[in-house]
Amino acid sequence: MTEVTPGLPAADLAAWRRRIAAALREEPADLVIRGGTVVDVLSGELRVADVAIAGGRIAAVGDGYAGTESIDATGRFIAPSFIDGHVHVESSLVWISEFARAVVPRGTGAVVTDPHEIANVAGLPGMRALLDGAADLPIRVAFTVPSCVPASPNESPGTVLGPDAVAEALSWPGVVGLGEMMNFPGLLAGDAEIGRKLASAGHLRRDGHAPGLHGDALHAYAAAGPTSDHESTELAEARDKLRAGLMVMIREGSSERNLLDLLPLVTDATYPRCCFASDDRDCHTLVHRGHVDDILRQAIAAGLDPVRAIRMATWNTADYWRLEGLGAVAPGYHANLVLLRDLATVDVAMTIYGGAVVARDGRLTAELPSAADAAPSLRHTVHVAPVLSNQFRLAPDDATTAVEVIPGQIVTRAVAVEPTVRDGWAVADPDRDLLKLVSVERYHATGRVGVGLVRGFGLKRGALASTIAHDAHNIVAVGTSDADILGAIAIVAESQGGLAVVADGQVIGHLPLPIAGLLSDQPIETVAAEYATLEEAARALGSPLDAPFGLLAFMSLSVIPEARVTDRGLLVL
Amino acid sequence: MTEVTPGLPAADLAAWRRRIAAALREEPADLVIRGGTVVDVLSGELRVADVAIAGGRIAAVGDGYAGTESIDATGRFIAPSFIDGHVHVESSLVWISEFARAVVPRGTGAVVTDPHEIANVAGLPGMRALLDGAADLPIRVAFTVPSCVPASPNESPGTVLGPDAVAEALSWPGVVGLGEMMNFPGLLAGDAEIGRKLASAGHLRRDGHAPGLHGDALHAYAAAGPTSDHESTELAEARDKLRAGLMVMIREGSSERNLLDLLPLVTDATYPRCCFASDDRDCHTLVHRGHVDDILRQAIAAGLDPVRAIRMATWNTADYWRLEGLGAVAPGYHANLVLLRDLATVDVAMTIYGGAVVARDGRLTAELPSAADAAPSLRHTVHVAPVLSNQFRLAPDDATTAVEVIPGQIVTRAVAVEPTVRDGWAVADPDRDLLKLVSVERYHATGRVGVGLVRGFGLKRGALASTIAHDAHNIVAVGTSDADILGAIAIVAESQGGLAVVADGQVIGHLPLPIAGLLSDQPIETVAAEYATLEEAARALGSPLDAPFGLLAFMSLSVIPEARVTDRGLLVL
Repeated sequence: MTEVTPGLPAADLAAWRRRIAAALREEPADLVIRGGTVVDVLSGELRVADVAIAGGRIAAVGDGYAGTESIDATGRFIAPSFIDGHVHVESSLVWISEFARAVVPRGTGAVVTDPHEIANVAGLPGMRALLDGAADLPIRVAFTVPSCVPASPNESPGTVLGPDAVAEALSWPGVVGLGEMMNFPGLLAGDAEIGRKLASAGHLRRDGHAPGLHGDALHAYAAAGPTSDHESTELAEARDKLRAGLMVMIREGSSERNLLDLLPLVTDATYPRCCFASDDRDCHTLVHRGHVDDILRQAIAAGLDPVRAIRMATWNTADYWRLEGLGAVAPGYHANLVLLRDLATVDVAMTIYGGAVVARDGRLTAELPSAADAAPSLRHTVHVAPVLSNQFRLAPDDATTAVEVIPGQIVTRAVAVEPTVRDGWAVADPDRDLLKLVSVERYHATGRVGVGLVRGFGLKRGALASTIAHDAHNIVAVGTSDADILGAIAIVAESQGGLAVVADGQVIGHLPLPIAGLLSDQPIETVAAEYATLEEAARALGSPLDAPFGLLAFMSLSVIPEARVTDRGLLVL
Repeated sequence: MTEVTPGLPAADLAAWRRRIAAALREEPADLVIRGGTVVDVLSGELRVADVAIAGGRIAAVGDGYAGTESIDATGRFIAPSFIDGHVHVESSLVWISEFARAVVPRGTGAVVTDPHEIANVAGLPGMRALLDGAADLPIRVAFTVPSCVPASPNESPGTVLGPDAVAEALSWPGVVGLGEMMNFPGLLAGDAEIGRKLASAGHLRRDGHAPGLHGDALHAYAAAGPTSDHESTELAEARDKLRAGLMVMIREGSSERNLLDLLPLVTDATYPRCCFASDDRDCHTLVHRGHVDDILRQAIAAGLDPVRAIRMATWNTADYWRLEGLGAVAPGYHANLVLLRDLATVDVAMTIYGGAVVARDGRLTAELPSAADAAPSLRHTVHVAPVLSNQFRLAPDDATTAVEVIPGQIVTRAVAVEPTVRDGWAVADPDRDLLKLVSVERYHATGRVGVGLVRGFGLKRGALASTIAHDAHNIVAVGTSDADILGAIAIVAESQGGLAVVADGQVIGHLPLPIAGLLSDQPIETVAAEYATLEEAARALGSPLDAPFGLLAFMSLSVIPEARVTDRGLLVL
């Protein structure tokens, strides 16, 4: 549920009185969880106790309460449900309800999400739709307001979030802060709009994003307002950020995996200033590896004390984000709990949300609305002018620099190349691994097309196209021929978003993403399987990359060095 | 300063840019503190570093900045200035500026104060006057809104703060929460007004007050909303409260001294949930023993790691109360700092507030307004109907129970006595240590007088009167004769509040407290000396008590067992 209610009593006086009465044993509790071992993240103890719940909150943690219902938790550990400190739910490729279907049985009870992708496509109405979609789920979805839409003037999102729009959204219930301030060059230059956005957060948090920043630049960044960071990849970097006053979110995503490198940061003195974040986990990772439970499992396996690990994944995160009433098993806290079979392996037996059992043995038991009908306002976001293949023509003089991808990284190199020329135009040449990279503006039917060369995708035939193209999410395509590029683009445009593999005029694979061109409206297991099939189809065209679509999605991102192709053309940073 | 600004940048864009520029060494900082050892409460480290300050905030903590001004801190420790988590500044007997004059040189940079005493006298306008008086001081004074005025229906304060008034004040800038919820019997009974007051705190904190509460009652109390407590006197009590989710404020006041008993609570696992509070420190203690510095000194002497102790007195308190931007030496934080000559002895050499030196070598260097003209709206609060000594008559049948004081405690006993009767009336009998205890309603000239007998004050002659009489602060007097009681009451009434000692018709001592009848308008050193003289004068009349006036102030407090005399008469609880 999105509403970040303060941890207070008496919006409902009757519920408040019932909670008191249940603690005093004057009335039975709604639910008593009996005989488990409470993971007390406040005292650091494990202790056998019953948990009495009334009106969705914990009334008491003690011994032997009467309850209308009860759960036998003998042999189980009772922990606060887990909290992801920073995640883009769009990275799952599924609608928020399907995200919940995957993570709630994993013990996740809350996420702080930055709807940066949907905001690039659909602005505040897009964020609003996601917020509404999250409202009745058995998970607290707290929002930050994207601070950097567009990522830079060099790409063209569906909308722009200026300081006024940011300030407006910061006042919405369910919003807990300003989203990650990625534009650190602008910040360090004292950009007034950035200053206004940071200021408008008021008493809310200001999430940071400062990869590799250190020394003076890090100090300036922290001094300017951001209060956290999840981008550390090296121990020394994380330590410097902690010293600089930033809450350190240790990230363990699908591909950005920093946990084991950063874990030595956590000591008796520093643990209160560290928590966990997944940032980006795709549907496959969520279904097969897990969510915060997976991060905890790895952390504990690497030697972190389980109670401390759980504290970092619950109370620390809640306290940082001011999610009052979340993150502890104590009277007055929301009854958002997870029952574990085993502490070290974080083996989740049951998830409880607002005092109700919502998942058991890895399966959601709460009913969720089908995603098939979700978010009508976020459909039909693709508006392209008719694209002709002659728009993909590239003059040889404009083709002397190519984007070179680096497997497993989103940074690229700008490399000098001698283009292969045919009929006076630079063309794709699979034999030399020089492919065409195309970006088509997809919101306002401007007909704007950017074209360049790329090395490293390794396709021997065919083309890939995607409406997931950070951050503006125009259409991006890579291919060995203009015809197949055109075909792939047509497929994703006609389906109002998606991923497509085309070869020799045939559609080899297609995953429609009708919600904002970013998300499927199908069940997460389905999407995970189809996505894997699609990546396999792309590899079958000759690409040596593990995740050709995963990498393609970053080929238009105008803020990461060194070279990109956006709808405005080749960009060298 | 009372405004609790969020820890943000750009209300002033220019200041925000200057801070960035100073961190980047593009412009000189306003002030650089060079060569000291930073007490980094976030990382737990001590490390030599320079602190660059611009626009009142820390721009960077590093090495070798250029600065318009600089301070040589070689051999000094640089810590965040100290924060008192819960204090009634009225207990100092001086106006807030004089309180600041005493504590700022001791390194205090912020206090969270519950203006409970002034609110009993003068309601929200009284709280407003204190808030205004604190606005320009070199200390952050954050306020909670008194939740229990009156303390009970059995006493008559100057005003009543109902749920609407509480809700109004909770919206004021500078207010950080609901004040200590002392009415735990009412809370446990589910009183609707208490529920409304707790609910109206919204996202703000709700301070607790639950002396001796344990088991079911403690769980019910915590479940109902309070989030902290400073009333633990025993280790097991404090541990139970921490487990129950309450932030444990370890109190060390003038007379309520719990530090050494509770210190074993602080472990690697629990320290983030503990901080310090003084609650009540009188002027004498503040001047001669100190404030948070004194608590730290004792804690460190008792074995607590100095960095951890300072963390508990700074960052933990700031984080609990959501005092954003306070409590750490890190970029972006307010430049509220203390320079220590020695860590273990907490020997304060200098206090810096908002980037300016405000105290040095134990003396305030900042200029403060004189208290002599302070708070005109809080003067003339005493409105008594003409009091005649026949109003002190006590029928023998109404004098069979006496209040018995217990030296050093505020609880009393109700004891059965055989009154001494003269001319048909029960009278004071110093030979039997049975004195008269009188309370006179002092706000609305109702002429209401309560009379009873008290044992334990031990006066052999004369009488004491005081307008400090928790919580309603009517006039309370104790004496050996109706004439001297009347004389003492007349003195404090005529001076619009104060303390008086009268014997055989002569004024032996008089400390005027013209501000709300609670506070002097004189310098704190003067008041400390005069208060000591007055207690000595009271003892010279035969009282064996250490602090006869200190104890007299609690003789009308209607919520502490077992017996009291309020303006409504003898009360046995």
